[in-house]
Amino acid sequence: MTLHQSDLHRAVLHANEAFYRAFSRGDVAAMRALWAERHEVTCIHPGAAILRGRSAVLGSWQQLLVGTMPRMRCDDPEVHLLGSTALVTCYEGNDAHPAHLVATNLFVLESDTWKMIHHQAGPLSKPRPSSERGPDRSLN
Amino acid sequence: MTLHQSDLHRAVLHANEAFYRAFSRGDVAAMRALWAERHEVTCIHPGAAILRGRSAVLGSWQQLLVGTMPRMRCDDPEVHLLGSTALVTCYEGNDAHPAHLVATNLFVLESDTWKMIHHQAGPLSKPRPSSERGPDRSLN
Repeated sequence: MTLHQSDLHRAVLHANEAFYRAFSRGDVAAMRALWAERHEVTCIHPGAAILRGRSAVLGSWQQLLVGTMPRMRCDDPEVHLLGSTALVTCYEGNDAHPAHLVATNLFVLESDTWKMIHHQAGPLSKPRPSSERGPDRSLN
Repeated sequence: MTLHQSDLHRAVLHANEAFYRAFSRGDVAAMRALWAERHEVTCIHPGAAILRGRSAVLGSWQQLLVGTMPRMRCDDPEVHLLGSTALVTCYEGNDAHPAHLVATNLFVLESDTWKMIHHQAGPLSKPRPSSERGPDRSLN
């Protein structure tokens, strides 16, 4: 991985962390800011239908974040750079409990900033204890 | 959408259809052929952990496809072109039953052919009757 790619990679991880930070803090403004503005966005919450378009997606986050949200943790994120698009796969859990969700997060570059364009989270049939966390390949 | 984009868009839909055709037919060779070879691939089956790497992903499909698979239908696919990457969101159902899964399919261009690089499918908490199929925006 070249230095430039390494920088891009690290910036994707930071964007992914910002998503979980906004989620955990119930920070609607931060959540709005991290979704893409110049690309169509989509979101699939666990068990739910596909939300298409910024209004539907951000409306759902507004509803979710005003409720009492437990802190959302992201385990074992792995980044795949695809030019100006980046895929992150990871697990999601609350507090110290084993991760109970698995997620796809997709980002695009808008004005040199990675913005979220798609998120899908779905349930794990068997929660995943932290001891099963793989080696941290996220910064390799 | 320009003619070139329209062609790319249509080709993504065809690649997506090829995935569900291979799935339905239990066609392991076709399934192997449609996954990317020059990019790292990942796959998240419903309820399962993340599979990372061609060996793990294709091994899982080999196991799945040798079993008795019901015909897998793709409802309401929507394509988002992102340069040489393309995102498809859709629902998945068997035979005439309402869709019971929702999916993210990600493709990349390899030698002018759209190849699958990532798939996540997760359960819908409420199956989605075909009557709820939205307008077909897939070729717009």
